[in-house]
Amino acid sequence: MSDLDLDLDSTTPSADPAVPGYSETKQAHLKRLRRIEGQVRGIARMVEQDQYCIDVLTQVSAATKALQAVALGLLDEHLSHCVANAVAEGGERGDAKLREASDAIARLVRS
Amino acid sequence: MSDLDLDLDSTTPSADPAVPGYSETKQAHLKRLRRIEGQVRGIARMVEQDQYCIDVLTQVSAATKALQAVALGLLDEHLSHCVANAVAEGGERGDAKLREASDAIARLVRS
Amino acid sequence: MSDLDLDLDSTTPSADPAVPGYSETKQAHLKRLRRIEGQVRGIARMVEQDQYCIDVLTQVSAATKALQAVALGLLDEHLSHCVANAVAEGGERGDAKLREASDAIARLVRS
Amino acid sequence: MSDLDLDLDSTTPSADPAVPGYSETKQAHLKRLRRIEGQVRGIARMVEQDQYCIDVLTQVSAATKALQAVALGLLDEHLSHCVANAVAEGGERGDAKLREASDAIARLVRS
Repeated sequence: MSDLDLDLDSTTPSADPAVPGYSETKQAHLKRLRRIEGQVRGIARMVEQDQYCIDVLTQVSAATKALQAVALGLLDEHLSHCVANAVAEGGERGDAKLREASDAIARLVRS
Repeated sequence: MSDLDLDLDSTTPSADPAVPGYSETKQAHLKRLRRIEGQVRGIARMVEQDQYCIDVLTQVSAATKALQAVALGLLDEHLSHCVANAVAEGGERGDAKLREASDAIARLVRS
Repeated sequence: MSDLDLDLDSTTPSADPAVPGYSETKQAHLKRLRRIEGQVRGIARMVEQDQYCIDVLTQVSAATKALQAVALGLLDEHLSHCVANAVAEGGERGDAKLREASDAIARLVRS
Repeated sequence: MSDLDLDLDSTTPSADPAVPGYSETKQAHLKRLRRIEGQVRGIARMVEQDQYCIDVLTQVSAATKALQAVALGLLDEHLSHCVANAVAEGGERGDAKLREASDAIARLVRS
């Protein structure tokens, strides 16, 4: 895992190197992730209690969708902050950020 | 959430009404789900620590794939136990189980 | 591609060996598939005419969803005909059909 | 469908307004799309000939994956051309392009 100060370098005066793209919505992401953590714990409890397969599956589908929503939110912010800043600066760093974002999108579409 | 005894009725002598399709692999499912719960907690920690968006996304894709694998395992066992038993008995209960399984598959494919 | 007569053997008097699970809805499937073929041809035409990327992507998403709907329809019928018949007969053929269906579901969820 | 000259305006001297992001790889996209069109036609023929459900499903999964690959290719080029150009120019147009791309990614992930 790279630290943020590797990603937004000191030549970007307008960008705080310690702040990732999702910083403004950090609390909302954390809240969502804690809810998903609870959902997964609830699914384990259902399995523990031998609850009906289809009901377990319904909860797994819901947790999967919730994780995708977190991913889409993070990606949206990443594009409009990290990627946009790098592209505005121009040069190779912009290209690298675009390539990296495309790869992440492909992983997401295929997961 | 329906209880299992609603799903495997007493006319199936070979099937223990208290045992869902996934009972033999229950410990494996629980282990997987606990690992996913830990993954989601780890993702929240990454967000808490302002880690790099793309690294967070990589972990979200991994957790999503792991949840899908749990779902496919549960579904496979559900088909070969609950659905197969109901179909072997014949009658409307088999049809109802098939319909219910198809709906769960559609939710899974679309999630 | 296996022929149908390999899949519904002559010990199933109620099942016509020449008829796959989707035979009753065959015309509906064919209609849908022809519409999807037209959608894909339309997407190629959009690319040919240098139309806007996002508009092309919207059509690709629509065609992908339409293909998934065909797959879910075929799978539903396969479960309630081929698989249910094999399971009702009992024995290894039922198990083999269930395994094969699970594998197809996994491919679908991951595609 | 918006025309391309609406998307790359005349203030971008380096960008030909008549050329979408995918122009360099247009022939490759067209080739892929024609292959997918043939796949879909082949699936219809399989249904027409009452071929085995699972074999049809395998081909549907393959066509779906091929469509996703086209979408990921188009999106990658859209980000590195249309979106990057708009962002480099700065202003509201860059924001609008980013928003539009995020929406397309969400449709893709959910399809």
